[in-house]
Amino acid sequence: MYQQRQRLSIDEYVNGVLHGDKIVLSKAITLVESTLESDHILAEQVIEGILAHSGNSMRIGITGVPGVGKSTFIESFGRLVTSMNKKLAVLAIDPSSQRSKGSILGDKTRMSNLATDPMAYIRPSASGTSLGGVSTKTRETMLLCEAAGYEIIFIETVGVGQSETTVKGMVDFFLLLMLGGAGDELQGIKKGIMEMADIIAITKADGDNKAKCERAKQDYKNALHLFPPSESGWYPPVLTCSAIQNEGLDEIWKEIEKFNIEMKNNGFFMRNRQFQNVQWMHDIISYSLKQRFYSNQVVNKSIRSLEKDISEKKIPAITVARELLKEYYNS
Amino acid sequence: MYQQRQRLSIDEYVNGVLHGDKIVLSKAITLVESTLESDHILAEQVIEGILAHSGNSMRIGITGVPGVGKSTFIESFGRLVTSMNKKLAVLAIDPSSQRSKGSILGDKTRMSNLATDPMAYIRPSASGTSLGGVSTKTRETMLLCEAAGYEIIFIETVGVGQSETTVKGMVDFFLLLMLGGAGDELQGIKKGIMEMADIIAITKADGDNKAKCERAKQDYKNALHLFPPSESGWYPPVLTCSAIQNEGLDEIWKEIEKFNIEMKNNGFFMRNRQFQNVQWMHDIISYSLKQRFYSNQVVNKSIRSLEKDISEKKIPAITVARELLKEYYNS
Repeated sequence: MYQQRQRLSIDEYVNGVLHGDKIVLSKAITLVESTLESDHILAEQVIEGILAHSGNSMRIGITGVPGVGKSTFIESFGRLVTSMNKKLAVLAIDPSSQRSKGSILGDKTRMSNLATDPMAYIRPSASGTSLGGVSTKTRETMLLCEAAGYEIIFIETVGVGQSETTVKGMVDFFLLLMLGGAGDELQGIKKGIMEMADIIAITKADGDNKAKCERAKQDYKNALHLFPPSESGWYPPVLTCSAIQNEGLDEIWKEIEKFNIEMKNNGFFMRNRQFQNVQWMHDIISYSLKQRFYSNQVVNKSIRSLEKDISEKKIPAITVARELLKEYYNS
Repeated sequence: MYQQRQRLSIDEYVNGVLHGDKIVLSKAITLVESTLESDHILAEQVIEGILAHSGNSMRIGITGVPGVGKSTFIESFGRLVTSMNKKLAVLAIDPSSQRSKGSILGDKTRMSNLATDPMAYIRPSASGTSLGGVSTKTRETMLLCEAAGYEIIFIETVGVGQSETTVKGMVDFFLLLMLGGAGDELQGIKKGIMEMADIIAITKADGDNKAKCERAKQDYKNALHLFPPSESGWYPPVLTCSAIQNEGLDEIWKEIEKFNIEMKNNGFFMRNRQFQNVQWMHDIISYSLKQRFYSNQVVNKSIRSLEKDISEKKIPAITVARELLKEYYNS
């Protein structure tokens, strides 16, 4: 059962976040992620309170299937970032563990060096429901971290679902981790993700694995060459790296900086942010409309069995939709 | 101004469609595409009336940028289909001409042989608004064509927008047309589309162009090899063809038939259809909720200027969303 927690006042949230207080930041994120109707207004007010102080970060999406060495990469790459005296926030979206409240501990265990780094803040992000929760809540979490002074934001996803498209819509740069030796290990990555990448980094390029990774690098370069160029005009480089041996990470960071400068110069960075902001409004609206519909008592009670009926061709999808909508609009 | 047209009765629509009457079919599609509130119930009743007779077709999405020779391909490939004594419906989604009512004529001109073929039916599909209109209306149009006895459905898109993802979600097979000589000519194709393809057909493989197309074929084969395999377990082949010389079209058709048999045997065909059906229900709901919201008087009047304000950072997206939603829910 849900336990009513103590809420702070708007000012306490806003001031705490703006002072970079990690405990208040965490509480503010919990507030934003709350599914309680009664928390929504307060959460919105907090976001509005910090909004003018947000936006001053480089937002980086990082994706890779389990096994690619994502935690090790983020730990080493994150330490590189903090060693340059930049505050780093890592938000992890894991759709598979959306119900496990214990994943905070999990994240801190798997990135133990980063977790104890005072310049870093690690937080799993509730992926919410399928109605678009990632989009609204992760975005708000990101804004809170920015307002708390974090200059670099990593948003981490596992590359197996819809989260990547959503994350692509809220970051400035998209980093894809891949394994050397193309083939079976790609099983997990969803189609379409490769084409979103602003950089492909081939991990575990050390020891016996090095030659294989170099070959993979060439293969991916050839493949990317066949892809249509992105709207930004950026050609995604392919690099190899070893997170354990701290090799190749500098080069990845340099590419991100280069991207940042080029995209600010050619105007894409700002245009993209503007577009994402307008999209954010539509996302909130869409999420709210669906949230309200699907949490309607009648809808909520019958939707699963109706989906089953549709699957089994017992009743047409259009009839179900029409009747649920009628019910909803009349209530 | 809109002219009130004569409507038929439910039975007239349903019987006409089931008898394969092209004129009634066209009227039924017009009804389904109508944006008049008063037409919606009748349209739904017609769809429900024909639904049991739909589904017995192979649904094929065909995408390629302007210049790839899409009309010529569809004309020749379509003639191949009708020559096998199969009834073919071609639905064309062209987002750029969504307001031009003259595109029916345009389609018939650009595919003149197919247009006069009694076994073929050509119809541009209203792409509707950005709220998800393609999804609901094109799907219903497809069902009407199936009920009218069309065994093969082509849904044609231009490969430059969101339509492809939507179409992918309602077809059994996705055919991507590409030009030989990789490079600049890919400019127009949106990222992510290549990874949706169940087949890549390189067009205009004739005369001097042949060698270039063969090289492109090998390049694409190598590139596809790096892509993650699709859920269906199908490995998309790359073929060359010449629509003018009627070369390579048989081979493409054979691959589609092979796909059809394999996917029916391994169960993917049916699973995919079931999944798409459930998705259809959610699409209708989502479309209806958004349609109702965005056509609300206050929302409709202010949304464009509010989007501009958000872009120019005059007012936060979250504030706009919150206030519009409050307004909407209270009205």
